[in-house]
Amino acid sequence: MFFQLDGTSGQARAGTLTTAHGVIQTPIFMPVGTRGSVKSLWQEDLVELGAQIILGNTYHLFLKPGHELIERLGGLHKFMTWDRPILTDSGGYQVFSLADLNKLTEEGVTFQSHIDGTRHLLTPERSMEIQRALGSDIVMAFDECPALPASREKLQKSLQLTQRWAVRCKSVELKPHQHLFGIVQGGLELDLRRESLQGLQELNFDGYALGGLSVGEKNEEMVELCKTFAPELPADKPRYLMGVGKPLDVLNGIKAGIDMFDCVLPTRNARNGQFLTRQGPLNIKKARFTEDAGAPDPTCGCRVCRRYSRAYVRHLFNVGEYLAGQLITFHNLYFYLQMVKEAREAILKGAFDEYYSKFYNDYSSNAWE
Amino acid sequence: MFFQLDGTSGQARAGTLTTAHGVIQTPIFMPVGTRGSVKSLWQEDLVELGAQIILGNTYHLFLKPGHELIERLGGLHKFMTWDRPILTDSGGYQVFSLADLNKLTEEGVTFQSHIDGTRHLLTPERSMEIQRALGSDIVMAFDECPALPASREKLQKSLQLTQRWAVRCKSVELKPHQHLFGIVQGGLELDLRRESLQGLQELNFDGYALGGLSVGEKNEEMVELCKTFAPELPADKPRYLMGVGKPLDVLNGIKAGIDMFDCVLPTRNARNGQFLTRQGPLNIKKARFTEDAGAPDPTCGCRVCRRYSRAYVRHLFNVGEYLAGQLITFHNLYFYLQMVKEAREAILKGAFDEYYSKFYNDYSSNAWE
Repeated sequence: MFFQLDGTSGQARAGTLTTAHGVIQTPIFMPVGTRGSVKSLWQEDLVELGAQIILGNTYHLFLKPGHELIERLGGLHKFMTWDRPILTDSGGYQVFSLADLNKLTEEGVTFQSHIDGTRHLLTPERSMEIQRALGSDIVMAFDECPALPASREKLQKSLQLTQRWAVRCKSVELKPHQHLFGIVQGGLELDLRRESLQGLQELNFDGYALGGLSVGEKNEEMVELCKTFAPELPADKPRYLMGVGKPLDVLNGIKAGIDMFDCVLPTRNARNGQFLTRQGPLNIKKARFTEDAGAPDPTCGCRVCRRYSRAYVRHLFNVGEYLAGQLITFHNLYFYLQMVKEAREAILKGAFDEYYSKFYNDYSSNAWE
Repeated sequence: MFFQLDGTSGQARAGTLTTAHGVIQTPIFMPVGTRGSVKSLWQEDLVELGAQIILGNTYHLFLKPGHELIERLGGLHKFMTWDRPILTDSGGYQVFSLADLNKLTEEGVTFQSHIDGTRHLLTPERSMEIQRALGSDIVMAFDECPALPASREKLQKSLQLTQRWAVRCKSVELKPHQHLFGIVQGGLELDLRRESLQGLQELNFDGYALGGLSVGEKNEEMVELCKTFAPELPADKPRYLMGVGKPLDVLNGIKAGIDMFDCVLPTRNARNGQFLTRQGPLNIKKARFTEDAGAPDPTCGCRVCRRYSRAYVRHLFNVGEYLAGQLITFHNLYFYLQMVKEAREAILKGAFDEYYSKFYNDYSSNAWE
C-alpha cells in the first residue's frame, strides 16, 4: 500500500508512504534540490540530516542537463547518487514564474528559457514524459497556477484548464514505480477548491496537493484556507501543501492535516544569513553577534550548533566565505526535519496540540529581534 | 625537539614537526584557510582529509574580523574550531599584492585596505603582534617580497631590508608555543640567496622559508633555483617553499629537500572546474565529459571519486551549483595530501626516486587534454 495512516491527533496526521526507493514517515519536509543538488550540501549531508525525500525541479532539469541525458545515465537517483525517494514538480510553476514570454493555450505553455532564450512548449504529456525520464517516485500533474489575488472568473477558468490537463496527465503511462499526484487549484475560494478536488478525485490520483498558495495572498488567508479545506482532502491519500513555507506555516499545515511540505526558505534564507531557531529567526549579520561565542541555536543538537560559534559564522558571512551558507543551510534543514519528526512523535502520542502550542509560543517569542 | 629528521632519500627528506597543537609529518602540504576557512570545506572535512596543518593569512584576518577580536575569543584555533597546527604568513605578501597605494619605508609598509580603503601601517613588530594574537603555531617573519624579474641591485636592497626586519621580528616576544621562521630572499641569484640565508642563520630561526618565488619568474627558473639552493638550507631545521605550487612543483620541491608547501591552486582551481588527477589535470567543463558516468579520477580513493560521476559534477559546474566547487576542492586537497603522504613513505623506504619518476611520468601524460 502506497499510503498508510499511522495515527491522528486532532486533524493532524502521522502516516507512512512506501515507495520503491524507501519509506517516508509523515508529516515530512522535503528539501529542495532544484537542479539535482540541495544547494551547498553534499548528498552525504542529506543522509546525515535524515532527509527522507527530496524535491527536484522539472523545469530546471529539462533545460539543463536535459531529462534525456539524465535518463541515459540511469535516471535522477543514479545521476545525483541519491537512492532515497524523490518528488518532481511538473515544471508548470517555474514556467509561469521564471521563463520569459510564456504563452498559455489549451495545448500547454510556450516559453523561452531563462538561461538561453531557447523556445519550448510544455504540455501535460511533455511534463509526464520528462518526469518519467527523471524517474522520480512522486510525479506531479501539470497545472496552471495563477498568481493571487485573481478574480473568481479567472480562478474558475484556470482550475477547469488544470482539470482538463489532469485528464491528459493521467492518460500518460509512467514507470511502474511512479506515483502521480493531482493538484487542487481554486485560490482562496472554498467552493472552487471543492470543485477542483471533486474533478481530480474522479481521476483517482495517488495523492492530492494544494497548489496556488504562497503566490501573493496574505499569510493569514493561506493559513485559513488550509485550515478549512485540508480536512476535506481524501483521508486515505497523502496530502501535500506545495511550496509552503515558514516554520509556523508548516506547523499550521500539520495541524490542518497536511502530510508533506517543501520550501526553499531554509536553504535560501541560509545563504542570506538567517538561522532558524526555536526562539525565532536569528540574523547572523547583526552587530550584537560580533563577539558572541555561543552556539547559533543553544537548544539545537546539530553538528553546526555543537561546534561553531555565532561570532565565527558571522565573520564567515561578512567576508563572503562559502562555509557560512553551508553551515546555516545544514542547520536550517536540521531544524525543519527535527520539527516534523517531533510533530510526528507528538501526533502518535495524541499530544500534537501541546507540541503545537509550545513550538508556536517559543518561535513567536522572536528572542533575537 | 621542534624538528626531527626521520629519513632521507637522495636530497628528499622525511621529518616530524612537534607543536603544541600536534605533530606534523613532512613533507607536508598546507591547505590555505585565508580568512579562517579553507574555502568551501567544513573543518570536519579537513580532519577527514588528514590535513595536519593549515595556513591562515595575517593580512586578511587583521582586516576582518581583526586579530584583537580573534584573541578575545581565544585565538584562531578556538575561533575557527581547528585544534591542529596553524601557520600564519606575515601579511607582507598580501600587502604588496592586494592592498592599494602601499608605501615602503624602513619602518614598514603603509597601505590601504582592499576592502574599505582604510589606511594601515604594517611593520615587523606589528606583524609579530598580530600573529601573536592569532596564536598560530608557526609565525612567519615580515619580509619584503619583490616581483620578478628584478635587478640585482633591487634584490640586494630588498634582502638587506628583509634582514633588518628579521632582526626586529626576532626581538618581539611571541607566545611560548609559537615558532618563528625566517624568509630567505634574493630572487634567482644564488649568491644573493646565500647572503640572505647567512644573515638569517645568525639570528637562529626555528625554520627557514624560501620566499619570493612563483612571483613572475619562469617555472624552470624556480625549479632550478630550488634544486640548487634548497640543499644549502640548514639540515636540522624545517624548510618551507612558500606559495608553491603545482603538483609537479611540489614533487620537485620534495626532491630538492623541501619539507613544507602551501598553495591556493588545489582550492582555487577547484572552483574553476579543474580536477587534479594522477594522469594530469582534468577540466570538467569539457564537452567530452557530458555523459561520462565514470569517477573524476578513476585511480583515486577519495569519497568524491567513489561516489560522484564526471557527468554529474560537470552539470553542477555548468549550472553554477555550489556543490561543484565543494566536491572538486575536497578531491584536490585529497590529491595533494595523498601525494605528500606517499612521498614520505617512499622517502622512508629510500625509494623516492622511483616514486618521483612514476608520479612525474603519469602526471605528465596529460591524459585528459
